[in-house]
Amino acid sequence: MKDYERFFSEGGRVLRESPIRKMGTVLAASREVISFAPGYPANESFPWDDFRAIADDLLTQHSDDLLQYGPTRGYRPLLDAIIDVQKTRGINVTTDQVIVTTGSQQGLFLLARALFDPGDVVLVELPSYTGAITAFKSFGADLVGVAQDDDGINLEDLDRTLARVRGEGRRVKCLYLVPNFQNPTGRLLSLEKRRALVEWAEREDVLIVEDDPYRDIYFTDVTTEADTRPIAADDPYGRVLYLSSFSKTLAPGFRTAWLVAPPVIASKVELAKQAIDLCTSGFDQQMVYQACVRGVLAAQAPRLRALYQHKRDVMVAALREAGTPLTWLDPRGGFFLWARLPDGLHADTLLERATAEGVIYVTGSAFFVDATGHEYVRLSFSSPSEARIREGVERLTRVMRS
Amino acid sequence: MKDYERFFSEGGRVLRESPIRKMGTVLAASREVISFAPGYPANESFPWDDFRAIADDLLTQHSDDLLQYGPTRGYRPLLDAIIDVQKTRGINVTTDQVIVTTGSQQGLFLLARALFDPGDVVLVELPSYTGAITAFKSFGADLVGVAQDDDGINLEDLDRTLARVRGEGRRVKCLYLVPNFQNPTGRLLSLEKRRALVEWAEREDVLIVEDDPYRDIYFTDVTTEADTRPIAADDPYGRVLYLSSFSKTLAPGFRTAWLVAPPVIASKVELAKQAIDLCTSGFDQQMVYQACVRGVLAAQAPRLRALYQHKRDVMVAALREAGTPLTWLDPRGGFFLWARLPDGLHADTLLERATAEGVIYVTGSAFFVDATGHEYVRLSFSSPSEARIREGVERLTRVMRS
Repeated sequence: MKDYERFFSEGGRVLRESPIRKMGTVLAASREVISFAPGYPANESFPWDDFRAIADDLLTQHSDDLLQYGPTRGYRPLLDAIIDVQKTRGINVTTDQVIVTTGSQQGLFLLARALFDPGDVVLVELPSYTGAITAFKSFGADLVGVAQDDDGINLEDLDRTLARVRGEGRRVKCLYLVPNFQNPTGRLLSLEKRRALVEWAEREDVLIVEDDPYRDIYFTDVTTEADTRPIAADDPYGRVLYLSSFSKTLAPGFRTAWLVAPPVIASKVELAKQAIDLCTSGFDQQMVYQACVRGVLAAQAPRLRALYQHKRDVMVAALREAGTPLTWLDPRGGFFLWARLPDGLHADTLLERATAEGVIYVTGSAFFVDATGHEYVRLSFSSPSEARIREGVERLTRVMRS
Repeated sequence: MKDYERFFSEGGRVLRESPIRKMGTVLAASREVISFAPGYPANESFPWDDFRAIADDLLTQHSDDLLQYGPTRGYRPLLDAIIDVQKTRGINVTTDQVIVTTGSQQGLFLLARALFDPGDVVLVELPSYTGAITAFKSFGADLVGVAQDDDGINLEDLDRTLARVRGEGRRVKCLYLVPNFQNPTGRLLSLEKRRALVEWAEREDVLIVEDDPYRDIYFTDVTTEADTRPIAADDPYGRVLYLSSFSKTLAPGFRTAWLVAPPVIASKVELAKQAIDLCTSGFDQQMVYQACVRGVLAAQAPRLRALYQHKRDVMVAALREAGTPLTWLDPRGGFFLWARLPDGLHADTLLERATAEGVIYVTGSAFFVDATGHEYVRLSFSSPSEARIREGVERLTRVMRS
């Protein structure tokens, strides 16, 4: 049989590869290519010795639940550790509000499953994280973009967009945001806007999905911890669903993240997770749990801030030294530098030449749900070494000049 | 805000807890309860020392890909190891046909995503595995049951059911089967029927989803390896999509399984997986890979056959000694004994009394898509100790007599 197409679902037929994952494939194909594409944590950031000691202890102790199927909701001690992490972020929650997810990608997908019917509108920033876009579209949500300023989402455009969508007779269920060092722009949402958004959500009867993987990675030269206070920390209404992850602070290989939501939503998400993978890896969860209670996570945070701040410095200095024709806002945290190409250059067409020159990035258009953004590139400084950041910037500058 | 219900999707609103997972919660709540409910591998079956040595080596070597995000398709060396495993089962495949999944549950869900639109009919056995039922329903598939004989699905009823469904103007996309030691009945599909099913699928233009987690656990006193030959091994047409797992042979805690499908379907499944969890845990995949190449998996198989055959013997002997009023077919492999209650007893109402007496099982009706099966119970002998199997059977017998 050759023709399998006719067996595909409508949803299956339109599945498209994520531009970021595609860049990962290019990367895997050649070690010579310098990649500013995927937002990978630096390999040198992983606490190898701690993980080795933890794994050795766990596999010596033979606890019944380490290698077995576990509760869908998550490993109970890890849920408690997550509640403690939430407390340090100003968010007080109870166990019935928390669920461990197999990466935040799964959290986004589970929310889509629980909440979105075909045609429901989700408001997202222009630009916004591609993984969320893909997850939300899985159940037919229609994504509508809202403009951003340097300090995050533009509140006037938010009101205008909401009114327009409602004027078309459509239901807006959620606003999706990455408030801290947004993927892809690296922007930090101002505290004033955070407070305003909670009131807006209550007034307009909309939920906010707050995706917060980069919160611990603020750069202390220009950002304080207080600047990263989650929207959920000041939400008296129960409007904010909060996601975060151990992928950037411990290791993405463990695929361990979490979602916090009102109990009735958390329960639905738990049921949805049963159908998707039964439970997150028990071994990974216990590795992460031990990293929490042994202080590994706490020790990581300041190290990571210093490491990525330095990498940002290296990239910014390299861009300046090379006299690159890009313009950008210096990142105040996170993994990404979002840059605008000089007039007349198109990020998609430039990528082919850049790849030939041995450097890759993610094209801005990948992050825009309105098919704009061709004048932007996302440069990730988190993963490459200093030397490769410099070399990559030189290559990229050559490509733009040629 | 109190009323979140109005934010749920249609699909979210109808999500229901899996009866098997619910039993897991009862189990977790009390260690005094003897559980014949979840199909958990025996904790004593895990190769702890091998895993400890592997983890220590991996975390000493600091390979770049161990703790990092990985390819959605899976860790490449593990894909190659899976190809070798497939070969031992008589199935020759290429890399573009294989994908690693976060447990077989995810494989089933991904197939549903790629293939099923609301209203598409999937034929399943009466009874059938609840995890598949839940996954398939996630995208609106309509499940229609087909009767079983002692040697597996009834081919006449298969033809009748297909004709009836088509007569209603509906499309049958797939037949889902667990050919080896079926969950829940423990039945083994005869080789004659396997061959007939491939021809049936080609003739009727239907795909077969073959779910094969228990294949290695055949009981050598009454079953040979040849009896377990997958349907996919004799499919010249490309009609069979094949799933299997390391959960029963190594450990479910690693959430590592695989799916084999024609390249065009495997590609769609890969794209669907991007939206669901980006990739399966790299650490878990490398643990499993090392267990494959170091011979741990090969050494496990005969040990597991002996272990679970012995546990079956213990349960069957206990049932006979107790003079229990149940009737059953002795399992030829796998984890489950499927038993029929004496006339007049109802598995759902009996469960309450059984739980009070300190023994639980899964009610047969959980596995029937046509809402029948209340006279059956699934007793899993894989996880409890010998002593607890005996004690549990005694308790259950007391409950039935009272």
